[in-house]
Amino acid sequence: MSKIREVAAAAKADSFRMASLPGEVRDDALRAIERALRGHRDAILAANAADLKDAENADLPEPILKRLKFDDGKIEDAIAGIRDLIGLPDPIGRVLMKRQLDEGLVLTQLTCPIGVVGVIFESRPDALVQIATLCLKSGNCAILKGGSEARHTNKALAGAIHEAGIQAGLPVGFLTLLESRADIDELLTCHESIDLIIPRGSNAFVRYIMDHSDIPVMGHSDGICHVYVDRAADIERAMSIIRDSKVQYAAACNAVETVVVHADIAERLLPPLRRELEAKGVIMRGAARVTDILTGIEPATAEDNTTEYLDFIVSLVMVDSLDEAIDHINTYGSHHTDCIVTEDEAAAERFMRLVDSAGVYENCSTRFADGFRYGLGAEVGISTGKLHARGPVGLEGLQTYKYRLRGEGHIVDDYAKGRKTFKFREL
Amino acid sequence: MSKIREVAAAAKADSFRMASLPGEVRDDALRAIERALRGHRDAILAANAADLKDAENADLPEPILKRLKFDDGKIEDAIAGIRDLIGLPDPIGRVLMKRQLDEGLVLTQLTCPIGVVGVIFESRPDALVQIATLCLKSGNCAILKGGSEARHTNKALAGAIHEAGIQAGLPVGFLTLLESRADIDELLTCHESIDLIIPRGSNAFVRYIMDHSDIPVMGHSDGICHVYVDRAADIERAMSIIRDSKVQYAAACNAVETVVVHADIAERLLPPLRRELEAKGVIMRGAARVTDILTGIEPATAEDNTTEYLDFIVSLVMVDSLDEAIDHINTYGSHHTDCIVTEDEAAAERFMRLVDSAGVYENCSTRFADGFRYGLGAEVGISTGKLHARGPVGLEGLQTYKYRLRGEGHIVDDYAKGRKTFKFREL
Repeated sequence: MSKIREVAAAAKADSFRMASLPGEVRDDALRAIERALRGHRDAILAANAADLKDAENADLPEPILKRLKFDDGKIEDAIAGIRDLIGLPDPIGRVLMKRQLDEGLVLTQLTCPIGVVGVIFESRPDALVQIATLCLKSGNCAILKGGSEARHTNKALAGAIHEAGIQAGLPVGFLTLLESRADIDELLTCHESIDLIIPRGSNAFVRYIMDHSDIPVMGHSDGICHVYVDRAADIERAMSIIRDSKVQYAAACNAVETVVVHADIAERLLPPLRRELEAKGVIMRGAARVTDILTGIEPATAEDNTTEYLDFIVSLVMVDSLDEAIDHINTYGSHHTDCIVTEDEAAAERFMRLVDSAGVYENCSTRFADGFRYGLGAEVGISTGKLHARGPVGLEGLQTYKYRLRGEGHIVDDYAKGRKTFKFREL
Repeated sequence: MSKIREVAAAAKADSFRMASLPGEVRDDALRAIERALRGHRDAILAANAADLKDAENADLPEPILKRLKFDDGKIEDAIAGIRDLIGLPDPIGRVLMKRQLDEGLVLTQLTCPIGVVGVIFESRPDALVQIATLCLKSGNCAILKGGSEARHTNKALAGAIHEAGIQAGLPVGFLTLLESRADIDELLTCHESIDLIIPRGSNAFVRYIMDHSDIPVMGHSDGICHVYVDRAADIERAMSIIRDSKVQYAAACNAVETVVVHADIAERLLPPLRRELEAKGVIMRGAARVTDILTGIEPATAEDNTTEYLDFIVSLVMVDSLDEAIDHINTYGSHHTDCIVTEDEAAAERFMRLVDSAGVYENCSTRFADGFRYGLGAEVGISTGKLHARGPVGLEGLQTYKYRLRGEGHIVDDYAKGRKTFKFREL
């Protein structure tokens, strides 16, 4: 067996122990990790400084540097996230359904951990803490691979978390940090041990993972988010929402990439929007007809429709109807988060029903698409797939369920032959 | 575009219309289908007779013939299933969560159809009716491929259902029946149009589908189900449960394939169990130590541990402890349904917590693992995967959800800068 296959098998074996630990043990481990992050503060900051220096030497772009940075504030944010997690109810063993099938024959559907979860994530080191602690709280064993730009920071963080977790009584396999890109390819073949892969990255990357694995994948792919400004929009509101959706954190997956404008409102919206965005340093790329109004801006190509800029760039598209906007979003979007700005409630309802995205918004910033802001505690990713979990994925998305059936010698033949009949009753 | 790709794209386009049809239209269509099945009775029975004749000429084994048969009783069963479906509440638009994030900013999580579901199923024609009507009730477009043994019956059934559905106002793409094996391979590449593939068949088949598609797969693979007879089992109860789990319908995926016996009870259980099973025509294959007690029975090989017989055959394994039984089941089982027979409540609790299967049973037949018997209405399959849905999959498993967020111009910057704070409140 290869090393990674052994690591995965060990995690699988530990996952049964992990799943059967009481909630208090998992919460105590979270408290120990909270202390460890404070205790290892200097080592973590030094590791991050090394990563930042490497990144600057490699001339990585500004948004990447911003994502990479892990300072005192980020440590405190991470600790606050852990405290929130401790305060949340134990997700394991929640009864989803309890039904009498017949006298003495009771069916219970209850939540349990998925098992072993492999998460491959981008350069933000705070993602490591969030993911590791979410997996812990939800009783799963985690195998993580972070971006190589953050390798020193990730190693320092994972080391501190692992040491604290073990001392608090968790099995050794509760957390494993992989170090090389080649490890991922190996991991993708371990379907006998890994129950779920969560890739966080570009569409191409998520598709690569899906193409190279028969393990179920919960894809966190590109955020090609849209703000559609309807003909019945309030102009000021639209400008404020577009500005926030783009510049509040341009490197985020829930930042807007394409603004879709109804032709009837374009003349009134576009010129002031241009002044507003240019003042913020945002580059605009206009599709046909947009450039007629905003002369001199860059023309958008077909590629812009499907590009996640992660930067201060936005493309602008003009449509003649609500349905054309919906069609554009369903065709080119990534089914992440899309917003309509309108004062027309019927238009909003149609938009929210027909847009096929995890988040369908009316009159608010796309930047709200986030586990914390949804009140889920934290998130292991934002699923742009439709299966299992969709949108921000917190503790619930890391649970599956099993059906327990308790009988007193009940056999099916009695029901097939009509000697007994089912007496369904919710309990 | 190839023909199948066009068919899939057309279904995708129709899926948005399908998702927005009111529940009454879908229920009316189910009523029309109910009438159509009665109206086309003679044609359906004639088609099935043709399939049965072909199967007999091809010397297909008895259990396959049994699954293939579609007589008056099966038509009435199918109609009863449709009536049950009509009686179930509309699964679309169910509010899973409604939460105020702040004043005027309300998050609603509500169910919606998955979109386009591809189902590849085995020879039972009743599966076609169940799957088509479940997809309809749940607002999904279905692309189906049945076993070639049942091709005449499937064509007659799908034709009747499609005609009735269209007349009741459903979009043309609500149901598509594929006819050739090659179509499946083509379908597996249509990830831009197909949201979910549900393969029902052998482990090897399900794995083939997963290996050849990057569409999410909800696998209904082998049922390698176990009955574990604990040292504290009631012998009579154990014999009755094993008999029912094997012979009540040996061709079913929830029939028992391996009986795991605690060594302490083997001498008392095995001889009478042998008499009982032999009287029913069941062939027994014994692993090491079992053949010492049951002299003369066939020896079991390692292959028997992972074989779904779908026939009157059962393998017998002996273990020295509860944990050894759990380990055997988690290692060789298919995570479908496994039962412990015991009067020891602590042993039952440990078994049910640690066995990693969709159904964990105590003192009842594995044959209860079924959507009807669980009170779910009907099932599109039994998922042996852990993601999205597990065990019998009914209407709920054919839904996803989306988050709607309604604001009044809310932007994230206000919260990031501390001008506003979230005021979470469940509504």
